Amino acid sequence: MHIDTGKARSFCETLFAAYGFSADESKIITDVLLRADLYGIESHGIHRLSRYHDEITSGQVDVKAKTETAHETAISACLEANKGMGQTVSVEAMKLAIQKAKTSGCGMVTVRNSNHYGIASYYTEMAAEHDLIGVCMTNTEAICVPTFGSQAMTGTNALALAMPAVPYVFSYDASTTVVPRGKLEVYRKNGQPLPDNWALDANGNPCNDAAVVVDNIIAKAGGGIAPLGGLGTLHGGHKGFGLSIIVDLFSAVISSGLTSNHVNRKPGHTGICHYFMAIDYGIFGDKTSIKESMSKFLREIRDSRKAEGQSRIYTHGEREAELMSQRINGQIPINEKTIEEMKKIAGSLKLPEQVLL
Amino acid sequence: MHIDTGKARSFCETLFAAYGFSADESKIITDVLLRADLYGIESHGIHRLSRYHDEITSGQVDVKAKTETAHETAISACLEANKGMGQTVSVEAMKLAIQKAKTSGCGMVTVRNSNHYGIASYYTEMAAEHDLIGVCMTNTEAICVPTFGSQAMTGTNALALAMPAVPYVFSYDASTTVVPRGKLEVYRKNGQPLPDNWALDANGNPCNDAAVVVDNIIAKAGGGIAPLGGLGTLHGGHKGFGLSIIVDLFSAVISSGLTSNHVNRKPGHTGICHYFMAIDYGIFGDKTSIKESMSKFLREIRDSRKAEGQSRIYTHGEREAELMSQRINGQIPINEKTIEEMKKIAGSLKLPEQVLL
Repeated sequence: MHIDTGKARSFCETLFAAYGFSADESKIITDVLLRADLYGIESHGIHRLSRYHDEITSGQVDVKAKTETAHETAISACLEANKGMGQTVSVEAMKLAIQKAKTSGCGMVTVRNSNHYGIASYYTEMAAEHDLIGVCMTNTEAICVPTFGSQAMTGTNALALAMPAVPYVFSYDASTTVVPRGKLEVYRKNGQPLPDNWALDANGNPCNDAAVVVDNIIAKAGGGIAPLGGLGTLHGGHKGFGLSIIVDLFSAVISSGLTSNHVNRKPGHTGICHYFMAIDYGIFGDKTSIKESMSKFLREIRDSRKAEGQSRIYTHGEREAELMSQRINGQIPINEKTIEEMKKIAGSLKLPEQVLL
Repeated sequence: MHIDTGKARSFCETLFAAYGFSADESKIITDVLLRADLYGIESHGIHRLSRYHDEITSGQVDVKAKTETAHETAISACLEANKGMGQTVSVEAMKLAIQKAKTSGCGMVTVRNSNHYGIASYYTEMAAEHDLIGVCMTNTEAICVPTFGSQAMTGTNALALAMPAVPYVFSYDASTTVVPRGKLEVYRKNGQPLPDNWALDANGNPCNDAAVVVDNIIAKAGGGIAPLGGLGTLHGGHKGFGLSIIVDLFSAVISSGLTSNHVNRKPGHTGICHYFMAIDYGIFGDKTSIKESMSKFLREIRDSRKAEGQSRIYTHGEREAELMSQRINGQIPINEKTIEEMKKIAGSLKLPEQVLL
């Protein structure tokens, strides 16, 4: 099934306004959500509306929260989000980082006590639109098991970076786990065994049963997902494990917030933390030639020899940019269950008939 | 075999002085080299002396090179290394980053046209000794094949980060490939097949024959090592591939230097590029409590439940700190071949008998 992009946008904007967000805030939250669908990252798009609905109506997200500045310098800030909506807090934080980068060359903003913020590349690409390098990280509830451990201690802990380039911005956005939890849920739904090296049972042994792993994660019974690089050290699992700690350092430790292993431990509470950075790469040399050098490097990679049977090498952000150009004035794919959830949510908020799809 | 740490130090210092480095420079190069042996990273220690000997005597390293500043701001610099020795250039660059972090909160120094710099954690831990976060990256000759490619385009491209903590500094230092080239050489020497997901042949097909892969890398005949996450996308190989591009961005692109795919293409020439960053984490809040929070997080990870059959979870830098405390006033392991190489080098430089081991 598909839904008209414009219709999805006006539905979401009306919905968020109904929760009590301002018109501007509703536009921001909607724009971040729909960007995920435009980029083909459906797990982070309107599919999440029902989860956001639960978080907002249960008070985990405070619709009226105001962000406060806990610490600030010319190149940095630490923001207390006061349980605000991740998307509005994050746009505010990246705007501040961009402003600092424009005046001081670099801006680093760390945020504590926030909520899920959608796709990280939305924020890094805000910096790229200002001809800056954008960096962004977030912790989450713990799902990733340390090398030689049996208990999840770090989150999906995605790391994102965008650097201006022609014709595609280089836009990296990936978890520091071998896969995000959503992938396990797809295997469970399809009744397929998990590939080796993805996940562990409650005793820290390799596990190919998606249902066991997901149920254990939800019950906090032990086990979870392997770090990027897989189980043990043979394929570099200790590297992904270290990268996930680095994400917690920048989002949670320097913001004086909660590390992944303490996130979401109580009802009505998350404590998710983020990090945003913008760098004016003109502080290192001539921007025109640096940007050309990046474009050339990415082009050389795309043009390099392909593996037998492969016809294309994508650089990061290329596929998403292509998909968005097809979908922005057209339609986005949506599954039937999501449509049903949207109707149910709209009904529960007593939205006027015409906004129901 | 073992060698007395003090004897190894005086041998190396005498040797580097004989090439024409100043006494201070010889001390620095030796200290970086020996730190690798003290940390148990023998591939980057005195084992490399014969490779450095070739690079210095062939003119790839210019012993008399002076580093020049190509661009500078209060928080940044771009340095032209003029083919200098990687270790001396890098200590200079990290000192500059530290100085900028102390006055401006953050210092970012990118370096072009340098040479191999040894272990990255040496430099990040310089920042940690000043109670700062240290970050460091370097590109190398291309050995890593892009996802769906068959031609190496990025280097080992290690990324390192150190953050002060008690009782162990968190010190991450790892390649963005699944393994470094040295690991393949060990498998070749032992006649063992490579694990799956490590390497590719010249046509981009999976390859378990270490000799084929290493010979192809040396001959630039195609193929090479997989990015962290392995071949294809199933285990996240596109993530490691993206991280290796990020390392080239910070070391080579913003320094207006050579990206990995152009490094070391001509005799007597490398063009290796580095990136150094120091952050005073006091720009985000109270340093004492931030450092305590990092120490607590790492302790919680080390104390978390172990996998069945495992007795210990190490955090990054812990094992190295333990090894160094054993070795610093004692001995370091060394293999017979390295001793022979050291004697040969000393002889070729006509060093007085007493420095021969």
